[in-house]
Amino acid sequence: MTHEAPAARKIILDCDPGHDDAVAMLLAHGSPKIDLLAVTTVAGNQTLDKVTANALAVGTIAGITGVPFASGCARPLVRDIETAGDVHGDSGMDGPAQPVPNIELDPRHAVDLIIDTIMAHEPGEVTLVPTGALTNIALAVRKEPRIVQRVREVVLMGGGYHVGNWSAVAEFNIKIDPEAAHIVFNEPWPVVMVGLDLTHQALATAEVVERIEQIGTGPARFVRELMDFFAQAYRDNQGFDAPPVHDPCAVAYVIDPDVVRTVKAPVSVELRGELTLGMTVADFRAPAAEDCHTSVAVDLDHAGFWNLVIDALERIGDVELPQPASR
Amino acid sequence: MTHEAPAARKIILDCDPGHDDAVAMLLAHGSPKIDLLAVTTVAGNQTLDKVTANALAVGTIAGITGVPFASGCARPLVRDIETAGDVHGDSGMDGPAQPVPNIELDPRHAVDLIIDTIMAHEPGEVTLVPTGALTNIALAVRKEPRIVQRVREVVLMGGGYHVGNWSAVAEFNIKIDPEAAHIVFNEPWPVVMVGLDLTHQALATAEVVERIEQIGTGPARFVRELMDFFAQAYRDNQGFDAPPVHDPCAVAYVIDPDVVRTVKAPVSVELRGELTLGMTVADFRAPAAEDCHTSVAVDLDHAGFWNLVIDALERIGDVELPQPASR
Amino acid sequence: MTHEAPAARKIILDCDPGHDDAVAMLLAHGSPKIDLLAVTTVAGNQTLDKVTANALAVGTIAGITGVPFASGCARPLVRDIETAGDVHGDSGMDGPAQPVPNIELDPRHAVDLIIDTIMAHEPGEVTLVPTGALTNIALAVRKEPRIVQRVREVVLMGGGYHVGNWSAVAEFNIKIDPEAAHIVFNEPWPVVMVGLDLTHQALATAEVVERIEQIGTGPARFVRELMDFFAQAYRDNQGFDAPPVHDPCAVAYVIDPDVVRTVKAPVSVELRGELTLGMTVADFRAPAAEDCHTSVAVDLDHAGFWNLVIDALERIGDVELPQPASR
Amino acid sequence: MTHEAPAARKIILDCDPGHDDAVAMLLAHGSPKIDLLAVTTVAGNQTLDKVTANALAVGTIAGITGVPFASGCARPLVRDIETAGDVHGDSGMDGPAQPVPNIELDPRHAVDLIIDTIMAHEPGEVTLVPTGALTNIALAVRKEPRIVQRVREVVLMGGGYHVGNWSAVAEFNIKIDPEAAHIVFNEPWPVVMVGLDLTHQALATAEVVERIEQIGTGPARFVRELMDFFAQAYRDNQGFDAPPVHDPCAVAYVIDPDVVRTVKAPVSVELRGELTLGMTVADFRAPAAEDCHTSVAVDLDHAGFWNLVIDALERIGDVELPQPASR
Repeated sequence: MTHEAPAARKIILDCDPGHDDAVAMLLAHGSPKIDLLAVTTVAGNQTLDKVTANALAVGTIAGITGVPFASGCARPLVRDIETAGDVHGDSGMDGPAQPVPNIELDPRHAVDLIIDTIMAHEPGEVTLVPTGALTNIALAVRKEPRIVQRVREVVLMGGGYHVGNWSAVAEFNIKIDPEAAHIVFNEPWPVVMVGLDLTHQALATAEVVERIEQIGTGPARFVRELMDFFAQAYRDNQGFDAPPVHDPCAVAYVIDPDVVRTVKAPVSVELRGELTLGMTVADFRAPAAEDCHTSVAVDLDHAGFWNLVIDALERIGDVELPQPASR
Repeated sequence: MTHEAPAARKIILDCDPGHDDAVAMLLAHGSPKIDLLAVTTVAGNQTLDKVTANALAVGTIAGITGVPFASGCARPLVRDIETAGDVHGDSGMDGPAQPVPNIELDPRHAVDLIIDTIMAHEPGEVTLVPTGALTNIALAVRKEPRIVQRVREVVLMGGGYHVGNWSAVAEFNIKIDPEAAHIVFNEPWPVVMVGLDLTHQALATAEVVERIEQIGTGPARFVRELMDFFAQAYRDNQGFDAPPVHDPCAVAYVIDPDVVRTVKAPVSVELRGELTLGMTVADFRAPAAEDCHTSVAVDLDHAGFWNLVIDALERIGDVELPQPASR
Repeated sequence: MTHEAPAARKIILDCDPGHDDAVAMLLAHGSPKIDLLAVTTVAGNQTLDKVTANALAVGTIAGITGVPFASGCARPLVRDIETAGDVHGDSGMDGPAQPVPNIELDPRHAVDLIIDTIMAHEPGEVTLVPTGALTNIALAVRKEPRIVQRVREVVLMGGGYHVGNWSAVAEFNIKIDPEAAHIVFNEPWPVVMVGLDLTHQALATAEVVERIEQIGTGPARFVRELMDFFAQAYRDNQGFDAPPVHDPCAVAYVIDPDVVRTVKAPVSVELRGELTLGMTVADFRAPAAEDCHTSVAVDLDHAGFWNLVIDALERIGDVELPQPASR
Repeated sequence: MTHEAPAARKIILDCDPGHDDAVAMLLAHGSPKIDLLAVTTVAGNQTLDKVTANALAVGTIAGITGVPFASGCARPLVRDIETAGDVHGDSGMDGPAQPVPNIELDPRHAVDLIIDTIMAHEPGEVTLVPTGALTNIALAVRKEPRIVQRVREVVLMGGGYHVGNWSAVAEFNIKIDPEAAHIVFNEPWPVVMVGLDLTHQALATAEVVERIEQIGTGPARFVRELMDFFAQAYRDNQGFDAPPVHDPCAVAYVIDPDVVRTVKAPVSVELRGELTLGMTVADFRAPAAEDCHTSVAVDLDHAGFWNLVIDALERIGDVELPQPASR
C-alpha cells in the first residue's frame, strides 16, 4: 500500500513587487506544495510598468520557467492612483541590483490570463493569491462571474481588523482600491484575509536575516538585500525594529494552514468613511455563521513561517543569471 | 468642383433595450449619417439575458446585418443590481410581440468587442453611444486605457443636471452604477451628457405616434406598439402625458448637433451622498474653462428630432421577419 | 361696520449682517406689516463678534428701540467655521461708515432669547426669519422641542433647489452648517425656503439703486453705500452685473406672499455628499403630499419686492445718529 | 508637619440610567474621593422621561441630598432617537422595584445646569463624567464655548478602539449621537475615553455579585437586583457569561487612575461611514504627540475596581426610603 502525497496547490499570484511580493514569489516557486500557474501584476507599490519589470526580474532570479507572466491594471477602479515609494523606493523594489530579465510577458491582459487559467481548470482547483490591490481580481470577476464558483479560495494579503498602515484603520492594498476590495470580499467565494494583524508578526528579525544569509545562493543574497532596504524603510517610516514581511504569509497559509491560524468572521470594506475609508470591518460580536465565507488570519507560527521561506530558498538553490543591469 | 458628403459617423451602441433603446438602435441603423459598428448590451432596464435577447430581436426587426452584437456585464461594478421592470415590463421591452432573432451573438465579451473595435480604427473615428449603465465602458477603459485617446467622443444618455427619476436628483442609468459613471465622466475624453433635462423634451406625443403609425411598415408598427406600452408606464408611474423617449436623443445628437443644443460645463458624479448618490453634478457658476471636456444637453429641437426618427424608419422600410415567438 | 387691518406679523430676525441682512432688518423695521420681536446673531458672513457689532450698528441706523438684540453661536454645530470675507469684506459689512451703536446687547444667549420669545407668545404667533446659518435655530429646537408646535412658520433665506454659490449645488448659509439646516428642515413646522433660485431674481439694478438714492435719508444713503460695495463684490467674485440682495426676500415673503411665489416640495439637506454636501435636495418628481411641511420660493415680483423695500425706507425716514466711528 | 488629603474631585454626572449608570451614581455618591456637583440626564438607554425618573429613583435609593438633578436633551442632535430596551428593559432600569422619588428636578435645562456649574467654579475644578450620549455636553459647549477652558477633563464612558456593540465597530453611546461625540472629542479639553475595550473587563462575576449581596443594605440589594437583570440581558443578547458594568469605570478612573490604565492616542469619531458610523477611531501607528488631548482606557484592575464599588456601597450604608411604587 502506498500513500500518495497530496497534490501541490495550484495558485495564481497577483502581485505588485514590492520587496515582500518578491519573497512571496520565491516561496511559491520554491515550495513543493505550490504549483504556480501564473503571475500577474497590478499597480500599487509602484506604477504598473515598474512592478511588472520587477516581477520579471524576480522570476528571472528565481529561475521560473514555463509560467505565464501578464501585466494588468495600471490604476485603481475608481480612485486616483497612489503608490508607496516611501516603503519600496523609486523602483518599487529598491536595494539589490536587478538582472536583465529572461522572461517575456504573456500578450494577454492579466484579467484575461486570470479568467482563462481558472476556466481551464476544474472547479475547486485554482487558488487566487493576491498580494497587491485587488483591481485585477475585481475586474476579472465582473467580466466573467463564473470564476466565483470555480475558484477554490482567495487568500489575500491586505486589510487588518485592528491595525492600519495607510490610515489609522486601513491597510495600503485595500485603501488604494477600496471598491475593488469591496467586490472581492462580497463575492461568495471563500476569502482568507491575511492582514496586518497577522503580518506584523512576520518580522524579518536579525536572526532570520542571518539564516537567509547562510544559505549562500544568489536568490538568498537577493532576499537578504531586499530585507536590508525594507528594514531601513520600516525603521524610518513606521518605527519598526524589524520589517514585517507581509506577502509571503498568504502563500504560507496555502502551503500549510497550521502556520497561519484563522478565524471565521464576516468582513466587509468601508467605502464611504472619512476616517475609515478602506477599513476591512470584521464583526466579532458573535461567532460567525456556519456559511460565513470570509475568515481572518490571527496568529502566525513565526518559526514555522520562516522555515517555509528558508526551505523554499534552499530548494531553489543557485540560479544562473543574465548579466545584471545597472540601476 | 464637387462637395463630398461628410462620412457617416462610426458609433458603438452600448444599450439595455429597453423601449427607447430600441428606437435608438432603429434610428442609428436607418440614418445615413451613422455607421453602426457594433451593438453591446449591459444589465439595466432588465437583466443581461433579457436585454441581450431584446437587442437581438430589435436588430432582427430592423434588418441589421453584418454588425457584431455582444453581451457584456451582468451587474454594476460595486452596487447590487437594480432593474426597471415598472417602466419596461418583465421582458424589459414589453408590448409588441418579438420575432425569433436571426442574429447570433459575437463570442467576445462586450468589453473586448468595444476595445477591439476602437483599437482597430484610427484615433478620432469611433464615437461611443451608451444608453444604459456605464459598466461596460468603465471596464473597457480600465482594461485598455489607450481607448481614451482614440475615442472621438462619448455621447451618453444618462444623468440630468436639474432633474432626477430614480431619486429626486439622480437618473436611473447613472444611479444604478455610479462608480462606472464616475469613471467615464472623469476620463479626459469628450463626454456629452444627454440627460433628463433634454430627454424630457423628447415626448412621443399623440401627433408623433400618429406620424409613425402612418409609415405603415413592420418596424414602424413595432415602434408604435413600444410607444403604447411606454406611454402607459410613464402615465402610471411618473405622471407624464406622453412618454419621454430618452435614448434616441443621444443618437440624434451624433447625427445632427443642431437638434440637441449643448453647453460646456464640468460634470462629476456624486458617489457618497445619502440623498444625492449618482447625481451628475454640473457646475454652472462660471463659464466652463476652454479645456472642459464635458458638456450637457439643454435644448431639443422637438420637430427636428422626430423628423430624424421618422426619416430613419422610412429608410429602413419593411423587413422580412422570421415568425414571431409567443411571449 | 369696520374692517380691521390684519395684525402685523411678529417675527424674530436671526441674522449675520452682512449687507443683505442689513437691508432685511431695515425692511422688517420699516414695514407696517411686521412686528419685530427680537434680533439675534450667528457666526456666518463674518465672525460672531463682527456680525453682532454690525447688527447693533444697523439697529442704530434704523432707529430701532425696544427690541432685544442677542448674540448667539460663534460657530457651526459640527463643522469648522467658514466666513464670507470675499463677499462682505473684513468687517462683514464693508462699505459705509458705521455709527457708534446706541443699543445694548440683551444678556441672554440668542438661543434662550428665541426660546423665551416663542414660549411667551401664543402658538401660531411667532415667525422665525433666519437669514444666516441655522445654528441658533437648531440649538433652540434641540434645547426646547416645544417651540416646534408654537412657531407659525420658519421663513429662511438659504439653500437653492437648482443653484449653488458655495459649491456647484450648495448655498453658503446651509453649507457652512449643514447639520443645523438638516435639523431645521426636518422638524415638522412649516418651512419656507427662500433660496438662491429666488434671490438671484432680487437684483439691485442701477435703477433700483437710483430710486433708493432719491429717498435722501440717512438710512437710504447707508443702503446705497452697502449696495455699492456689494455690487463690486458680486461683480468680482461671481460675475453678476447687479448684486442679488438675498435676505430681505425672506422678510418680503412674510409681508406679502404675493411678492414671492412658492411651491410645496419635500426638501432635505445632504449631509454626506462629497460634491453635494449641504445641498437642499427638493423633490419635484410628483406634486407634494397634502401634509408636506416644506415649500420653496420660485418666482419674485421684482417691482413689488423693491417697492416694499423703498416703502420701508421711506417710512423709517431720517434717524438721528451718534457720531460715526472710524473704521 | 501635616499631610492634607487631596480634595475630593468635583464631578458632574451626565447619564441615562440605565443599570450601569445607577452603579456609577452610587459609586460617585459613596466615594469620599468624589464631590458630586450635579446629575443631569439625556435620552439614550431609554427615553428622556424614563431615564430622568430612573435618575431620581437612584438618587433616592442612594440618599443623595443637596445635589441638583436636571433633565436635558430628549433626542440626539441630528439622528433619530434610538434606545436600548433590549439591554435595559422597558423602564430603562428593569429589575428592582423603584421607590417614590424624594428628589425634585431642578427647573433648569441640563445644558444650563452644566454651564452654570462649570462657570461658577474655578478653571480646572470641574470634571465632566458623561455615561450616556454626548448630546447635553455638545450643546453646552456650543452654547458656552468658554467651558472648554474651565473643565478639568472629560472622562466619558463610550466608544471603543477595537470593540463595538451597536455595530461591529461602534458603541451605543457614541453611535446614537455621533455628531455630539464628534464635537466633544474635537474640543481641546482633555478627554479620557473609557470604552468597551476597558469596560468589557469590568464583569460583574458571580463572586462580585456575592460580595455585593453580603453587604446587606438596601442600596446593595438594589445593585444586586440590577445585576440580575443585566446579567440575563447580556447573556441573551450578546452571549456574555457575566455582564460588563460599563459606566462606573469612568467614575473609578476619576477616583483612582491606577485602577484604569490609559494610553494617549488621537481619537476622532467617524461621521460618514456606512459600516463604521460612530466608530471612535484611535490612531496607534505612532506614539501620540505631547499635546495630544485624548486618551483611551486599556487595562482595568478588576479587583481594585470592584473594591471601589463595594467600599462606596458600604459607606452609603442603609438609606430610609419612601414606600416603593408598584411597577
